[in-house]
Amino acid sequence: MKLMRIGVPGAELPAAYLDPQTYVDLSDVVVDFDEAFFAGGGLDRIRPIVEERIDSGRLGTYANQRIGAPIARPHQILCIGLNYSDHAAETGQEVPNEPILFNKAPNTLVGPDDDVRLPRAATKLDWEVELGIVIGRRTSYLDSVDEARAAIAGYVLVNDVSERAFQMERGGQWVKGKSAETFNPCGPWLVTPDEIDDVLDLGMWLDVNGERRQTGSTATMIFDPCTIVHHLSQFLVMEPGDLINTGTPPGVGMGLTPQAWLRPGDTMHLGIDGLGSQRQRVIEAR
Amino acid sequence: MKLMRIGVPGAELPAAYLDPQTYVDLSDVVVDFDEAFFAGGGLDRIRPIVEERIDSGRLGTYANQRIGAPIARPHQILCIGLNYSDHAAETGQEVPNEPILFNKAPNTLVGPDDDVRLPRAATKLDWEVELGIVIGRRTSYLDSVDEARAAIAGYVLVNDVSERAFQMERGGQWVKGKSAETFNPCGPWLVTPDEIDDVLDLGMWLDVNGERRQTGSTATMIFDPCTIVHHLSQFLVMEPGDLINTGTPPGVGMGLTPQAWLRPGDTMHLGIDGLGSQRQRVIEAR
Repeated sequence: MKLMRIGVPGAELPAAYLDPQTYVDLSDVVVDFDEAFFAGGGLDRIRPIVEERIDSGRLGTYANQRIGAPIARPHQILCIGLNYSDHAAETGQEVPNEPILFNKAPNTLVGPDDDVRLPRAATKLDWEVELGIVIGRRTSYLDSVDEARAAIAGYVLVNDVSERAFQMERGGQWVKGKSAETFNPCGPWLVTPDEIDDVLDLGMWLDVNGERRQTGSTATMIFDPCTIVHHLSQFLVMEPGDLINTGTPPGVGMGLTPQAWLRPGDTMHLGIDGLGSQRQRVIEAR
Repeated sequence: MKLMRIGVPGAELPAAYLDPQTYVDLSDVVVDFDEAFFAGGGLDRIRPIVEERIDSGRLGTYANQRIGAPIARPHQILCIGLNYSDHAAETGQEVPNEPILFNKAPNTLVGPDDDVRLPRAATKLDWEVELGIVIGRRTSYLDSVDEARAAIAGYVLVNDVSERAFQMERGGQWVKGKSAETFNPCGPWLVTPDEIDDVLDLGMWLDVNGERRQTGSTATMIFDPCTIVHHLSQFLVMEPGDLINTGTPPGVGMGLTPQAWLRPGDTMHLGIDGLGSQRQRVIEAR
């Protein structure tokens, strides 16, 4: 299944994506794709409903409504740093021995095509195309990497927007440069694992103003999704609906020579095979 | 007002604290002390209700029920590092130029007297008595430090429990050592600012197994609560009910010679003038 949320911010309706014109409305059987939905086995519950509605032709037609993030605001957004071997090489940094954890404020989550707001004091706004993991159940102290598979509800495309001066030059911890409003575009879809042949062989790309900046593949991830979930479960408890951004391939603005930063009016366009694409315009902060 | 939540974990009832024997039950007029409560002006709404119930003698009698954290799980827990000048001196570190921001998982929040669970792989479990700020309204880009005053719903006592090996030796960002289950005891009360004469003159202390380890005062805070809230508002949006741990005075286990770490069976007892006290036993992880 591909799940999505359609409508105005804060009042999106849950649906299942079928094709660019067609979806299955689920707003009569699902409150939201939120913590309670995943905790209560919602994915298993809606699967036959979606099939039945497809069979009976009970379909909605997409009419250019806004697409929201495919999950409600999560309990936490965890992020893995420096998780692509070619990106580590590009920046001249050592490949880490274990996943580097940081995080960002949950209220950074926005839809895939929403505007990204340049913070008032920003000077170094940057992009990061990433594979996101959505957690499907309360997860703590997993015994094995293989056990992590059952904890993953699905995958999403995210742009881990970053302000590098805030991140690196304003007091030590990365969260300060990762948490501004609109800094985590997500979606268009939550894709369940059964729809992805090989999560470690997905092409990914990001353009700025039509110019290709990032080209990569999940094949060069250092720590794969199950390893990440197993590892994090030794340090904290993940709640159903939690989001994990798993790191970015080469080509971020910080890694270019000369470095390049986003300005109001710029456009980011990004995608991952099978997870859809996003397009954001950079605008001034409120 | 002093607000508290009484009852079993996950089903606490909102109340106003009067004295060790007496409280005003508010569960018929308040769902919870959560984001919606603060966002909807709940503090102003309940103030006359509490007064009316005191006047009419409509009081509850405390019967040794569990006390929960005085707020529901917040959207985010932000933390300020190295914010006491005497603690900075003790560790030989420079006084920071601006607040050092890190954070911990929101689901670390527990009641003031709940057990603290030693993570399975932990070797360096540590304590930190801290003043916590609870945010009362959606807060972004405050124009002045003075404006921050109106954004603060009240203050709480917190223990910012930390695992120093996870924090310092496992991949760079502090959040990994701050986010284990039960790592943020909070309460017993949320005290509204009108009940505190001078938030910058509160004595604070922490004992381990009956031995005084931390002695300090908010008088040696480097960045005061309004400065912290104003500063953070330039980098991210705080939601109503968000919690900010504002740093710890000298005497943590990491700062002792030799260093001292908590083990199962140890007891922490801590307090801040006017904000009550907490007592936690350290037990093994689940």
